[in-house]
Amino acid sequence: MKASDVLPILRWLPGYHRQAMGQDLLAAALVTFLVIPQSLAYGLLAGVPAYIGLYASILPPLIYAIFGTSRTLAVGPVAIIALMTSAALTPLFPQGSPEYLTAAVVLSLISGLMLVLMGALRLGFLANFLSHPVVSAFVTASAIVIILNQLRHLLGITASGSNLFELLPPLFAQLDRVHLPTLMIGLATMGFLIVTRRHLRPILQGFGLPASRATLLARLAPIVALGVSILANWFWRLDQQGVAVVGQIPSQLPGLSWPEFDLSLWRELAVSALLISLVGFVESVSIGQTLAARQRERIDANQELVALGGANLGAAFSSGIPVSGGFSRTAVNDDAGARTPIAGIYTAIGIAVVTLLLTAVLAYLPLATLAAAIIVAAGSLVDWKTFWQTRRYSLGDFGAMIATLAMTLGHSVEAGIIAGVGLSIGLFLYRTSRPHCAIVGRVPGTEHFRNVKRHEVETTDHVALLRVDESLYFANARFLEDRVLALVAERPKMTDVVLVCAAVNHIDASALESLEMLDHRLGEAGVRLHFAEIKGPVMDRLRDTVLLENLRGEVHLSTYAAWTFLRPSSANP
Amino acid sequence: MKASDVLPILRWLPGYHRQAMGQDLLAAALVTFLVIPQSLAYGLLAGVPAYIGLYASILPPLIYAIFGTSRTLAVGPVAIIALMTSAALTPLFPQGSPEYLTAAVVLSLISGLMLVLMGALRLGFLANFLSHPVVSAFVTASAIVIILNQLRHLLGITASGSNLFELLPPLFAQLDRVHLPTLMIGLATMGFLIVTRRHLRPILQGFGLPASRATLLARLAPIVALGVSILANWFWRLDQQGVAVVGQIPSQLPGLSWPEFDLSLWRELAVSALLISLVGFVESVSIGQTLAARQRERIDANQELVALGGANLGAAFSSGIPVSGGFSRTAVNDDAGARTPIAGIYTAIGIAVVTLLLTAVLAYLPLATLAAAIIVAAGSLVDWKTFWQTRRYSLGDFGAMIATLAMTLGHSVEAGIIAGVGLSIGLFLYRTSRPHCAIVGRVPGTEHFRNVKRHEVETTDHVALLRVDESLYFANARFLEDRVLALVAERPKMTDVVLVCAAVNHIDASALESLEMLDHRLGEAGVRLHFAEIKGPVMDRLRDTVLLENLRGEVHLSTYAAWTFLRPSSANP
Repeated sequence: MKASDVLPILRWLPGYHRQAMGQDLLAAALVTFLVIPQSLAYGLLAGVPAYIGLYASILPPLIYAIFGTSRTLAVGPVAIIALMTSAALTPLFPQGSPEYLTAAVVLSLISGLMLVLMGALRLGFLANFLSHPVVSAFVTASAIVIILNQLRHLLGITASGSNLFELLPPLFAQLDRVHLPTLMIGLATMGFLIVTRRHLRPILQGFGLPASRATLLARLAPIVALGVSILANWFWRLDQQGVAVVGQIPSQLPGLSWPEFDLSLWRELAVSALLISLVGFVESVSIGQTLAARQRERIDANQELVALGGANLGAAFSSGIPVSGGFSRTAVNDDAGARTPIAGIYTAIGIAVVTLLLTAVLAYLPLATLAAAIIVAAGSLVDWKTFWQTRRYSLGDFGAMIATLAMTLGHSVEAGIIAGVGLSIGLFLYRTSRPHCAIVGRVPGTEHFRNVKRHEVETTDHVALLRVDESLYFANARFLEDRVLALVAERPKMTDVVLVCAAVNHIDASALESLEMLDHRLGEAGVRLHFAEIKGPVMDRLRDTVLLENLRGEVHLSTYAAWTFLRPSSANP
Repeated sequence: MKASDVLPILRWLPGYHRQAMGQDLLAAALVTFLVIPQSLAYGLLAGVPAYIGLYASILPPLIYAIFGTSRTLAVGPVAIIALMTSAALTPLFPQGSPEYLTAAVVLSLISGLMLVLMGALRLGFLANFLSHPVVSAFVTASAIVIILNQLRHLLGITASGSNLFELLPPLFAQLDRVHLPTLMIGLATMGFLIVTRRHLRPILQGFGLPASRATLLARLAPIVALGVSILANWFWRLDQQGVAVVGQIPSQLPGLSWPEFDLSLWRELAVSALLISLVGFVESVSIGQTLAARQRERIDANQELVALGGANLGAAFSSGIPVSGGFSRTAVNDDAGARTPIAGIYTAIGIAVVTLLLTAVLAYLPLATLAAAIIVAAGSLVDWKTFWQTRRYSLGDFGAMIATLAMTLGHSVEAGIIAGVGLSIGLFLYRTSRPHCAIVGRVPGTEHFRNVKRHEVETTDHVALLRVDESLYFANARFLEDRVLALVAERPKMTDVVLVCAAVNHIDASALESLEMLDHRLGEAGVRLHFAEIKGPVMDRLRDTVLLENLRGEVHLSTYAAWTFLRPSSANP
């Protein structure tokens, strides 16, 4: 194991150059401004004093930058995890009490330990089970929920929730109560962001600016929007006309501490911590995978577990709430052109500085401006194209996408992921439980054998060559048995069945028992069972079994060998 | 669909002959005697008046006999389902109250409806996921729990429970309080049953009796044991010396009725009913499968769902508790030589008659006699041989067996099944997520290609033929990508990679995306990606995809075709 496997920062830090630094600083500045009110909001959502959300945005991204393998994943308090935190603690202690606060820290601590442990046990392969279609549908659905959740800030109304059923009714009910000044700030920001996103770079290049400079300037647009809206509010006191603003933030840094050990509390929180760890990891890895695939890069799931665990331990150490990779902050980070995890470190420093210094200025920031930036960023995550491509290629995968989308929109993010992964695995099992079997014949003049239904091939009445297109295991063992016995019933002249096992990669104990029974029954019907093209690893296991000891037929190296062996006997009846 | 698919009774009733009738009557008589005290006990266990257990043993087996596909499965109240019933209802109503009784009937009703619905939706294939090793381990573990549970009746002590932790401590603690007269009755019965089971038939044949008559007489042994012990108790009043007996049973038949519909009660019981349905079905099918396999027969899981659902509806209709196929009663039925489901009908009639007439006689039956019969029957289900056979063949399958055994013995029957099935599926997914890949070469003078590590084959430096021994899907798509890219890095002279897809039975949307990326990256490294032996169904899907449109290499019919196509180009560099 190399040091860079444990500390991915060593992979890219030595080659860190000025251009990347500029882009990282820019991204960090943007993320800082966008993350501060978000962190405050998620702190409140988690049931702890709002500034705890800020605390959880300083140490965790710093630790993630050192251990993480995604270049642009931004770690901090996220909506779902904040909601789960509140759901876990509210039944135990009154919100806002010191006990509640301690329990939140313990929750971060247990989650962190669990994640690090899972990483040490190399359980990151679990993330492979998040198929591309499921991740894609999950991202799209979550982006929609995020957008709908931010609409209230754009419209100046109250409508929040974790699914369409919670979000849509209050949105529609309050359409007549929309606060026009708020809406205009929001729409102006959105319009500005969308236009600059699409057209500013070509326009700047049209003025003769080099491409890299134009890209950078175009990416400054959101900061301009923030500055302008703060100034506008400061001059015209829009907040006194009912426009919601960020408001006063306490300016202090977290004290570093460690929660006391209380076994009964740990036990009470263990299950919640496990769920938070899993959902946080799955969410984090989904985001990381999507971004990595776009850049044709790869993330290491085991290392991500360690990094995310470290981040949560950091949250616990600095009296914060559980953290994870967040959609909107990551989208802004990536969108603003972050190149390395250093952006996360800059963000952490930025938030620490802002917490200390800029609170008076930030107090004037209208929430509608922030909501507009988040909506534009989330909007770019919505991807319907993959839905239609998948629908054309595989209805099963498309079904898993629809289930993920429907459950995420209609119930919750966790339900969406569970439904998608569960359905993907279920479909795979169902598919392999009814394997494709083909009767094959010889392609004339060759030693090659293909499906009789698809190719012009030679066959004989006395020998059936059955190619089994699946590993044989418990779920399909009896299916094959039925298939072969049906074949024997159809063809009274048949004396030999050859199972062509080129596609059989494994025969488990249930299937072995099933094949023994098949050989026995075929024997009673006067038919010999043969095997051909059994693979090396499969043959190694079969060598000492009752199946091969009692087998009435032979094991042939190739289908052609079985064919030449059996043909003469069929000629002399 | 044929009528006999819906009513399996039509398959065998027309051919029902006298010999089978004799054996069925004998089995039914035995089962009747063994089932009555069991039913009373399970009624008490479920928290309802004891006679409700008897009621649930009359109509349900009658309905199962008409719809069921297992020849010898005996349906009625069973320990696990009785325990689950009590666990579901005790928090809602006081045990023994009329509300509790109504709720028990509603539970049967909902379970019955759920099972019939699952049968109608053809969800019986779910039973295929109970692999042979898991079922075998489950049967062995359950038999051990049943035996340990019956020991208290044999020893005259109190020790009951659903796992070793609940059973063993009271057993050991009370070893000094063993009731000797009870133990002697029990041991005498067990000794008699074991000896007659093993030796009576050959001895009778030795006296010149024909084989069939000898078999019948030998099977009368348990009835003789029952009769003798009842008479012994009646003469010597052993019960007055502390020997536990069945005692007074009310002699009346259930009135047929239907529970009132109460939506809130249905809602409260829905989850419990679902669990009871699933566990009952899984247990029932496990037993049915084991017995069917022994007779080289087959059961139809979908029809079993309907039959079991019907039996539960019957239980609800006759104010009973939820029912399922029971281990011990089925073991006795099979052991006593039941040939057709008619034995179940005879049993039902027998129980009805006994309920009305023989209660005064049965009252004298020592529980130790019954316990001895159940222990002997359950003992024959314990099967360690399969454990050792499986261990030699496949450590993974053996692991699933051990997990099933440990969880059933250490926790509960449900936990055992869930652990076994979960581990089986998990192992299959893990296995397929890290597929076997082999570099293949040409077997000299043939068109056949085999693993370079296992066979003497021809290869060239410029072409790598990689055989992928697994379907490509989300869990292994990235594994293959890594494997191929590692291969390219190892062999600088390589210009062409051929993926031999003879064993690839499916390529899902995630794997498709992964292959597109692989082609792109190989292209950047100056390597062409080819495919060979893509199967018909896989090729049909790939035809219109971006992968084949952009593919730098070719799709070859066979590995040999790829070999001849690429060899000349490797000769002229």
